[in-house]
Formats: sequence, C-alpha cells, structure tokens
Amino acid sequence: MPASKLEDLTRCAVHTMTHKSWTLEQCCNNYAAAGIGGVSVWRNVIEPIGVAAAAKIVRASGLKVPALVRGGFFPGVDAATRAAAVDDNKRCIEEAAALGAEMVVLVAGAVPGMPLGEARMQVAEGLAQVLPEAEAAGVKLAIEPLHPMYAADRSCINRLSEARMLCEHLESKMLGVAVDVYHVWWDAELQWEIDVAAEMDRLFAFHVCDWRTPTRDMLNDRGLPGDGCIAIRTIRGWVEDAGFRGFNEVEVFSNEYWAMDPQTYLDKLCQAYRGHV
Amino acid sequence: MPASKLEDLTRCAVHTMTHKSWTLEQCCNNYAAAGIGGVSVWRNVIEPIGVAAAAKIVRASGLKVPALVRGGFFPGVDAATRAAAVDDNKRCIEEAAALGAEMVVLVAGAVPGMPLGEARMQVAEGLAQVLPEAEAAGVKLAIEPLHPMYAADRSCINRLSEARMLCEHLESKMLGVAVDVYHVWWDAELQWEIDVAAEMDRLFAFHVCDWRTPTRDMLNDRGLPGDGCIAIRTIRGWVEDAGFRGFNEVEVFSNEYWAMDPQTYLDKLCQAYRGHV
Repeated sequence: MPASKLEDLTRCAVHTMTHKSWTLEQCCNNYAAAGIGGVSVWRNVIEPIGVAAAAKIVRASGLKVPALVRGGFFPGVDAATRAAAVDDNKRCIEEAAALGAEMVVLVAGAVPGMPLGEARMQVAEGLAQVLPEAEAAGVKLAIEPLHPMYAADRSCINRLSEARMLCEHLESKMLGVAVDVYHVWWDAELQWEIDVAAEMDRLFAFHVCDWRTPTRDMLNDRGLPGDGCIAIRTIRGWVEDAGFRGFNEVEVFSNEYWAMDPQTYLDKLCQAYRGHV
Repeated sequence: MPASKLEDLTRCAVHTMTHKSWTLEQCCNNYAAAGIGGVSVWRNVIEPIGVAAAAKIVRASGLKVPALVRGGFFPGVDAATRAAAVDDNKRCIEEAAALGAEMVVLVAGAVPGMPLGEARMQVAEGLAQVLPEAEAAGVKLAIEPLHPMYAADRSCINRLSEARMLCEHLESKMLGVAVDVYHVWWDAELQWEIDVAAEMDRLFAFHVCDWRTPTRDMLNDRGLPGDGCIAIRTIRGWVEDAGFRGFNEVEVFSNEYWAMDPQTYLDKLCQAYRGHV
C-alpha cells in the first residue's frame, strides 16, 4: 500500500553532493531555511575545512546528520591497497563520530577483472577489520548495494540480499543496509529483502532519486523524484510498513541539475519530495 | 573450473546484428568461410528479402541456426497493444520454423512507469498465448533476462531466477532461458541458476560478449570477449558442466566495431573467440 503524502520536510535529508557547487555551510543554511530536517555529509565538503569546523557548522544549523558519505571500497589488488582502505574507513568512522553522524554509508568497491566472488570476500574481510572501530565509536555502517551496472568497478555488492548476507555473516548490530531506490528498484525481491533487513534491525537508511528513461549518463543522470519510473512512494510504504522511521534521504547526481541555479534546484527538490516521495 | 580452450569455431555462432552493415547473405557467406558453425538471424535482415529467400540463403551456407532474434516485448498499456505483440510473436515463431531456427529469443519488454510486477504478469500472459504456437511448430522460446539497467524500458525480466520462475509457472518443455553473460555476469546466484535451468532442461542458449569499463554507451558499447571484465571462460565452464552442448553465440552491439571494416572485425571476433570464450 502506498504511503501517505508527506506534507513537511522534517523527515527529509539531503546529501551535500546533490548541491555539488555549495559548501557545507551553504548546504546546511539553505537546507535548514527550506525546512529540511537533515543533511548527509559527503567527505569532499569536509576536506577543505576539517572535521571540527564541519561539526560546528552542522550543529549550528540544527540539522540532524543521518550519514557521512562514504566509506568502503575495500577490494584491492594487493594487501597494501586493502590495508590503506581499512585505514581510510577507520578515519571515516572517526569523522562520523565527530560530526554526530548516525552512520557511515559504505560503497563496497570492485576491481575490474577481479572475480566478483573474490571481491566480495575482500569486502567481508575489510568490514570485519573496521567493525570494532564502528562499535567503539557508536557509528553504524550501512552497506549500500549499487546497481549492477556498477559491478565492474564500483561495487561488487549489487543486491540487498548480498548486503544482508554480509550482515548475517558478520553478526554486528552496527552493520546494516542502505536502501537506495535507484540501485534496487528493479529487484523482484525488493520488498521481501526490505522486510528481512528491517526484521533483523539492519535497515539503516532509505535514499531516493529517480531513474530516467533514457538514462543519458551512467553516473550523473539521476532524476528528482517524479522525473522517472521508480514507484518511490510505494517503496517508501514498504520501508515504513517494515518499521523504518529514519530519514528519506534525497541523493541526486545530475549534470542537468548541477548546471541549474542551486537555489532554484533546491526549491524544485522540495516540491519533488512533497509530490513524489 | 574454467572450460578448456576452444580450438575451432564449429560451436561458435554469430548474431547477424554483430555485423550490422552486412546483409544476411554476406553474414552467412563470411561466417561460413571463417569456419564458424552457426548464425543467429535477426529479423531486420529477413525483412528486406522475405523468409523464404532467407531460408534459402541459410541452407546454402550450411550454417546451423540456433536462434531467430527476437520476439517478446509483451507488456503494453492497453489490450490492443498486447494483442499486437502476441500476433507478432506468432509470426516470429512461423518465421523461425521456416528458417529452421532451433529457437526464438525473447526479450520480455517493459513500459516505463508500469509497475514491474504488472509488466511481469503481462509477460506471463503473453507467453501463455504464444506457447501453443511454439509447441505446434517445434520451435523453442528462450527468455533472455536483460541487465537491470534495461528494466525501465526493455525488459522487466532481469535475472535468470525470474526467467526460470516463468518457465516453472508455464510448464512447457518448449520454454527455456538464454544466458547472455553481458546481462547476468554480476549475479551472485549465476552458477546456481545455470545449474537449475540445465537440470530442468531449460538452458537453451549461451551468448557471449564482454563488459567494458567504462561503458560509454548503455546500448552499443559491448566488447568482444577479452575486451572487458567478464570471466567468460569460467561461465562457459559452468554452462558445460551443467550439461549444455549448444552454440556459444557471439552477439556484440558496438558503435566502435560497427565503424570498423566488417571483415577485419570478423577476423578479430574469431581471434577473440579462440582466446577468451
């Protein structure tokens, strides 16, 4: 059953990458002014100012921070590369704690030509090495399966079932899944996997954007809710029926929208959220 | 366990669309001259000459015809559209029989914005209406799951498991699956689903090409075997271990290769087949 219409934006969070041209401060000020309740912070906006200044900006805005984005990318061709990834994830967890972020979103990673089975084992090994850090810091880790069109080079975890099996394997309450409709909308087992993840208390995040037809660019042609074919409100209904009460995070990479005046784009985003999430 | 290297091309079949600029006669003559054993015929090369002339060309070449490509595209916004699709599939089955093709390859179809569950039911209904025709004609129907990046507008069937469930539902020995590595290579359940389909005697076809990183075009940037990251020989090993003894069908859509001299491209294809399939 479709969820009811959202009248306000208090459960809306926006990913800073959605407004690629804005600083963290611009994102926070403008999102808060629009009545948006949360911001998910990408590391590239922290990098120029440092995490202490970033935390100050976020706190001043009054916005909640569902996620720091993004860690992961565990597979590597040699042990040194994999160890560097683990170190980077530990830093990411520290940053998330400093920022007051509820979780770190993880993109699994992949190496072109590496058998997917091997890459998946390396992801499990990497996760096992960083989970104690996450548990100590009280920061959740959310594995976000990416669309299979990214299996070669970005993520060897492409369906919720795979992410869920990693959670079962690693048995930490701090490891869960992020459901991004863009990546998983096509999956015939989507509702079932949402129910299972929620039942396990591992449904940590819900991300929305839309799939355009045609898709003009495999990376940066995502749509605002309503631009495409994904039944976002239906899927939000599934997520909520399963017990999820977190943010609806809007995360859009779009050459078209990035070229638009960012404030006009934000207004459009708020309208899209009210009309289609 | 990887399959052993293929020394000759007798089990190689090439899809005419691979050489888009050639007529059916050019395809057949040049494939036969190269020692290739089969040709899978796309309907666009039959259209200008008619099926009787096409059948004559194919018979004269001595090539086997694993497949006529392609039927399907069952979902439609109204009953008239769906009925037209059923009629077209019946014609396709007749053409396949006239051509001596073992099977018709089916792309399920999809309608942007139609819920995938509904589209999938319409596929099942369409299949049920054309199966008696296929059974009477002795022509197999092979459902080819397409990559999830085509879920919005080309195929609501995106994994082998979905195609296999359609086979189970419709219970006809003439309905099976086509495994195209391009579409399913990323699936963690690939080997299992190959085994199940073979065990059911429903593994009808095996198609090869490669996934390039980056993929520059979502439709027409497929690689020859060896150009990309798919472990084609490993997957061929799975298919053969499961009992498959049909053709290894090379099917490549590539703006880059289509721009090349077609005979040079054919030589390259034969080399790629020997080296990487």
